[in-house]
Amino acid sequence: MSIYLQDIPLPQAQSRLREALNDSGLWGVLGSETIPLDENALGRVTAEPVWARRSSPHYHSAAMDGFAVQAISTNGALPSKPVLLTIGAEVHYVDTGDPLPEWANAVIPIENVESLNAQGEIVTDIRNPTFIRIRGAIPPWSHVRSLGEDIVATQLVLPSGHSLRPADLGAVAAAGIQEIHVARKPRVAILPTGSELVPLGSKPRRGEIPEFNSLVLAAQIRSMGGEPVRFPIIKDDLDAISRQVQNAANEFDLILLNAGSSAGAEDFSARVVERLGSLLVHGVAVRPGHPVILGLIRRETKEGKPDLPGCIPIIGVPGYPVSAALTVEIFVEPLLAVWLGRPPLERQTETAIIARKIVSPAGDDDYVRVVLGRVDGRLLAAPLSRGAGVLTSLVQADGLALIPRGIQGHEAGEEITVHLMRSRQEIDKTILAIGSHDMSLDLLAQFLARRGRRLVSANVGSQGGLIALRRREAHLAGSHLLDPLTGEYNLQAVREYLPELPVRVVALTGRAQGLLVLKGNPKKIYGLEDLIRPEVAYINRQRGAGTRVLLDFHLKKQGISSDDILGYTQEEYTHLGVAAAVASGRADCGLGIAAAAQALELEFVPLYQERYDLVVPKVDAEGDLLQPVFSILEDADFRNSVSKLTGYDTSVMGRIILED
Amino acid sequence: MSIYLQDIPLPQAQSRLREALNDSGLWGVLGSETIPLDENALGRVTAEPVWARRSSPHYHSAAMDGFAVQAISTNGALPSKPVLLTIGAEVHYVDTGDPLPEWANAVIPIENVESLNAQGEIVTDIRNPTFIRIRGAIPPWSHVRSLGEDIVATQLVLPSGHSLRPADLGAVAAAGIQEIHVARKPRVAILPTGSELVPLGSKPRRGEIPEFNSLVLAAQIRSMGGEPVRFPIIKDDLDAISRQVQNAANEFDLILLNAGSSAGAEDFSARVVERLGSLLVHGVAVRPGHPVILGLIRRETKEGKPDLPGCIPIIGVPGYPVSAALTVEIFVEPLLAVWLGRPPLERQTETAIIARKIVSPAGDDDYVRVVLGRVDGRLLAAPLSRGAGVLTSLVQADGLALIPRGIQGHEAGEEITVHLMRSRQEIDKTILAIGSHDMSLDLLAQFLARRGRRLVSANVGSQGGLIALRRREAHLAGSHLLDPLTGEYNLQAVREYLPELPVRVVALTGRAQGLLVLKGNPKKIYGLEDLIRPEVAYINRQRGAGTRVLLDFHLKKQGISSDDILGYTQEEYTHLGVAAAVASGRADCGLGIAAAAQALELEFVPLYQERYDLVVPKVDAEGDLLQPVFSILEDADFRNSVSKLTGYDTSVMGRIILED
Repeated sequence: MSIYLQDIPLPQAQSRLREALNDSGLWGVLGSETIPLDENALGRVTAEPVWARRSSPHYHSAAMDGFAVQAISTNGALPSKPVLLTIGAEVHYVDTGDPLPEWANAVIPIENVESLNAQGEIVTDIRNPTFIRIRGAIPPWSHVRSLGEDIVATQLVLPSGHSLRPADLGAVAAAGIQEIHVARKPRVAILPTGSELVPLGSKPRRGEIPEFNSLVLAAQIRSMGGEPVRFPIIKDDLDAISRQVQNAANEFDLILLNAGSSAGAEDFSARVVERLGSLLVHGVAVRPGHPVILGLIRRETKEGKPDLPGCIPIIGVPGYPVSAALTVEIFVEPLLAVWLGRPPLERQTETAIIARKIVSPAGDDDYVRVVLGRVDGRLLAAPLSRGAGVLTSLVQADGLALIPRGIQGHEAGEEITVHLMRSRQEIDKTILAIGSHDMSLDLLAQFLARRGRRLVSANVGSQGGLIALRRREAHLAGSHLLDPLTGEYNLQAVREYLPELPVRVVALTGRAQGLLVLKGNPKKIYGLEDLIRPEVAYINRQRGAGTRVLLDFHLKKQGISSDDILGYTQEEYTHLGVAAAVASGRADCGLGIAAAAQALELEFVPLYQERYDLVVPKVDAEGDLLQPVFSILEDADFRNSVSKLTGYDTSVMGRIILED
Repeated sequence: MSIYLQDIPLPQAQSRLREALNDSGLWGVLGSETIPLDENALGRVTAEPVWARRSSPHYHSAAMDGFAVQAISTNGALPSKPVLLTIGAEVHYVDTGDPLPEWANAVIPIENVESLNAQGEIVTDIRNPTFIRIRGAIPPWSHVRSLGEDIVATQLVLPSGHSLRPADLGAVAAAGIQEIHVARKPRVAILPTGSELVPLGSKPRRGEIPEFNSLVLAAQIRSMGGEPVRFPIIKDDLDAISRQVQNAANEFDLILLNAGSSAGAEDFSARVVERLGSLLVHGVAVRPGHPVILGLIRRETKEGKPDLPGCIPIIGVPGYPVSAALTVEIFVEPLLAVWLGRPPLERQTETAIIARKIVSPAGDDDYVRVVLGRVDGRLLAAPLSRGAGVLTSLVQADGLALIPRGIQGHEAGEEITVHLMRSRQEIDKTILAIGSHDMSLDLLAQFLARRGRRLVSANVGSQGGLIALRRREAHLAGSHLLDPLTGEYNLQAVREYLPELPVRVVALTGRAQGLLVLKGNPKKIYGLEDLIRPEVAYINRQRGAGTRVLLDFHLKKQGISSDDILGYTQEEYTHLGVAAAVASGRADCGLGIAAAAQALELEFVPLYQERYDLVVPKVDAEGDLLQPVFSILEDADFRNSVSKLTGYDTSVMGRIILED
């Protein structure tokens, strides 16, 4: 039985950790070090205020090319009544930046003087006259860059707790400081545990999981200003884990003990913490990530290191990658902020409209990954996969929507607050595609990236795409809906689902649909008639998917009842999902496209040709955001890379099928 | 004569550079390299799309603790009609994360079964029964984490031109990739030139300037993803500069030739570029920074390196630090973006109300550094020093307001667009202080920083501060305005300047005012009566400054005419400015506070005691933003550090003088 059944609320968990660290004298800046002032100081955090040791500039200098004088000697000069000054004693030429002679207190710009020779004639070498003639008096200190213009000795240059930026380094240097006291980087030990884990690089067998959490955690720690060290994988062995935890505790400031994703893995972590220190929190009411463990580990006292704290914090990080990453954000980042003396990370927030209903456990703070896009001027938030194992949901996410405890979710259309993981500019360049999936969309995404656009696709099938367009939840929909009556693609469905919305329908590509089977086609499946054979398990696409419509169309035509097809009710949402099902033996065959078969080294039994179109609301088709989409359809490189996909026919690419 | 008199508009300069680089095949990604997938890949930019080599997970696994079965074997099970399954052949216990047996296609959660022994009795070791009894059928693939749930082989994981974040590294690893192709870091040579420059660390003499521009430039280049190398200082010698430029051209991708701040220094740069390559642009209509030089330098052909481009770009960076930093932002950052294949940096923008009138040359794109603060719900932009030499204006700045060519500035109260250099959160924590300057404000700023507030002070004198409060341009004003009639401080002035605005006036500190003179008081200045001695030069504070009022009050009292005081018209805006003037010999004495004298090692002749108050509009005094200010006034640490300043009396600190 798992022993973390009592999840406590997040604030409570955080305060327990804070209090425990406070009691151990670990709630504050860990320590400082003196580093030379060079570009490596970038991003380091000042450990004490920086006071100017020197003024900058530290002497008066000429602010213009001209002649240094005592202002008083210009008194009485008028256009009608010029004053003659002699170079040497009372006048001296200076370039911009030259120090002012001690006796001078002003500069007459060279363009305001007449340079004369001994005979009183104007000279061409205006910088080397014998006399100058001026026709105006000047006040003292005019055209002088005076001492301390930028920095005056003893002034505050930077407060403590300030993260150093390029200009800061210059200011500190200008203030006469060559070394700077910065907070010491917290050293964080990352311990991956789990008997199912294998190192990256080794080809994992069934039941083995490549260990990549420690990579993500280390990168997070580094980006937060800490110094991560990744430990080798430790098997699920209480003693082995305890040994490494104790070693880490003696050398580091913080331990991240990453549990395996197998059941009860967290129990090991909990037992280790109880054995070597004290368990503060076991389970927090956050999703993903609730099996978090917070504790303290006793340090083994060392010779000659009496100043070391008696214990260090340990955080038991859940095994699933999304849970692991969020645990670091929620618990480690604020701790590193305290240890570095800088403010904690605060993400910008945006109010967005949730595109689809989301349900959330009332008892938890629920972090939902969302993609954001501006459609019809409204900022939409489309929820991504909720699975704690779906790391790509973090890669795709534009932000996190926190659904606090006590709230059981949101209806589509409600406003939510999103904590941004991308800049507003990036978000404004996001194209939301929805509908049927096609391999060429991945290529389109890549080509769009080069043109400063981000394509985010949600795969909900052709019909789902058109419905989303009607709700104005996306910029374009990929569709390959066959009209059983006319045999034409998409037009009928567009009229049916989007009676009100003017659209442009443009052909992306033609492609073959067929049956995906294992190499060598062991079960000899050549047509739909084979699907009713009892030993043949079929994997289907979801209702509304064009491929599903295509199947039903031909089943009807051939008079085959879906009830007779084993697995007809088993649905996948993408072609690759179908291919994966066949490749893994979950099913013997499924209808799909050749590209998917090729992707997973399956055999492809071609049956039909179909057209895959992009349906784009007129208002979007004519807007700036989507222009690159249409120019890419004219791009020979793109055409080539699509035609390289087996079964693809790009002759139709870019053809306007419908223009309202 | 300077030879860069024809400044061309910014877009034109940029396109000249782009075209020249295009012709040389240098407008695009410089090249790529393969690096191991570890935390050092953080921030690198993908040079090609990343396609998944492996699915993740790469096998079906149990999503819950329970019993793996073939779903079909559960058919017909009902609460009233349980089904008995035998462990072994058809049922097998699995933990969460365990791979599913080949023959199974579903998991029954352990909480949904009764575990029985051979005799059909319920057993306590529920994971090791002989039979399990179930009272419900389950569909295939329930409670299974299926192959490819996160990533399906061959799908696009990341496009090219993507800057790697922690989660990205995990996704790439999960997709079975151990090495990643990223854009090569552009190598940038930074060459500081100028005979007036001395290395950091050496104590600069008069006329010598510590060289810190290369430090700022290097830090900028690094933060933009380039690899900077700082060259030693080169004197203003055409041949010496040419030699180093040629060396750099043969080894690097870009040269930043930083001219000295002395006149004609840019001419050297221009001549070097003309000698070793081609001069594209000499002077751009931007401020600060207009003497920018853009050009190409020929590479000396190398044995066995025929693939190297024939030339590389060189950018002549102006000598003044602000100009230098902005030149890198405007010209180098976009270039590095192209070379790395990533989008260029785009700062978030905010619309703000300009607090003070700014005048701008119509012919230039003018970048004004501003501080932002939210006062009365309005976002205010207060312009900072415009001086190209005032690096601290970049340190303090919250953003840049671009005043485009053709616009000659803005009136106070107009809306402007600000490109943010700090996050909105930081800006919302900014306290705008204005008015008279006091050393204790620097200490206050430091204490506020620890409490998550940023204090930005503008020094405009006591009266100026109160006027700014009336215009609601600041959160608080420091004031020490003596009322000549009552001898009381500030109350009279507050009534006069803020008749409408309810305020809280709180005492910050008492302090001594006196005459600042050189050590040893060489001119024997002991009172105001000495100011009229012909050999005594005085340095004054600006009109409206409390110190100025104090002086005039006592001059009147002693019947001294200001006309008889040499330098009475010479104004400084801070106490330290006055001290600097005396220290530098610009003046023999000035009225000011002891702290300023101490700061610049001057002698202080105490004359008067005065009180320095903070005037805070009621609405701000009661808001969250300023609460830390009042708690700090109760803070013993703060009191101590202020009382350490000579001449300070903290007994009044925190006393409420007026509460409307």
